[in-house]
Amino acid sequence: MKRKSFGNMQCPVARSLELVGEWWSILILRDAMHGLTRFDEFEKSLEIAPNMLTRRLTSLVSSGLLERKKYQDHPPRYEYILTKKGKDFRPVLVSLLAWGNQYLAPEGKSVLLVDSQSETIIDPILVDRNSKKPLTRISSRFVPGPKANKETIARINFANERKPKKIK
Amino acid sequence: MKRKSFGNMQCPVARSLELVGEWWSILILRDAMHGLTRFDEFEKSLEIAPNMLTRRLTSLVSSGLLERKKYQDHPPRYEYILTKKGKDFRPVLVSLLAWGNQYLAPEGKSVLLVDSQSETIIDPILVDRNSKKPLTRISSRFVPGPKANKETIARINFANERKPKKIK
Repeated sequence: MKRKSFGNMQCPVARSLELVGEWWSILILRDAMHGLTRFDEFEKSLEIAPNMLTRRLTSLVSSGLLERKKYQDHPPRYEYILTKKGKDFRPVLVSLLAWGNQYLAPEGKSVLLVDSQSETIIDPILVDRNSKKPLTRISSRFVPGPKANKETIARINFANERKPKKIK
Repeated sequence: MKRKSFGNMQCPVARSLELVGEWWSILILRDAMHGLTRFDEFEKSLEIAPNMLTRRLTSLVSSGLLERKKYQDHPPRYEYILTKKGKDFRPVLVSLLAWGNQYLAPEGKSVLLVDSQSETIIDPILVDRNSKKPLTRISSRFVPGPKANKETIARINFANERKPKKIK
């Protein structure tokens, strides 16, 4: 079954999903952030079929998350390097990691994030860049932006009416 | 084409992807965080086929992200409420929102996150809960956790050899 295209939806979450495309793409991005660059490295790490891997890499290149660079002339060989847009996807992966560690690792954690210098285990949370205030469902809410169309405005207004109220 | 199951992969990112299942699930979670609870509300917001919506809601209930509650007896009617596990998925959505706003809204932003009290626009970043230090590719790295198997250890060690080095 062909899924609906989300690209024409205005919501930035829907658009992100449209672009990243499918789970394989996210796992390729994960491996790219780990430093993998070559076709055979991705193939081995992901145990993915070569035709599927080709398709996903091509899609990530055309979406601007990966750049394809020749690293050898005879025979020609290419590697796939994260662009800034690709690198900036890291918080999504770290958030997935944190959630997976919290809920889907009953036998104990298999992957942790640590501080590069102190090796202290990191517990990732979202805050506002300026105030450093943690973002919760109570402390933050969604509002229509300057370019919101009437569907987006209606959806968010509905949302804010239903939102849990702040305790006064 | 049936996609491979990621559930038996040890990586918490892969397991999260397995559980949330597909893009529709993430958009349902987004709407649930906006306060939608009823079948017809999701149907209208997402313009999703009823049989697909039923399937995704059932899957989110059995994964423990939504709880199905009867809100009316005659005739019986149900609503879908986020569990704690579902609510804790919010940072993934906020990270997708931030990335989408940065890269996929050339015409301007249609959805923003603001502080509930001050209405200041929030720029979400990930930090460590204790040190409040922002998490970058340089300041943080992945390490095998206590329950890592040998494949996970090999993948992460490879990753760390390739990792961009800290500037001394």
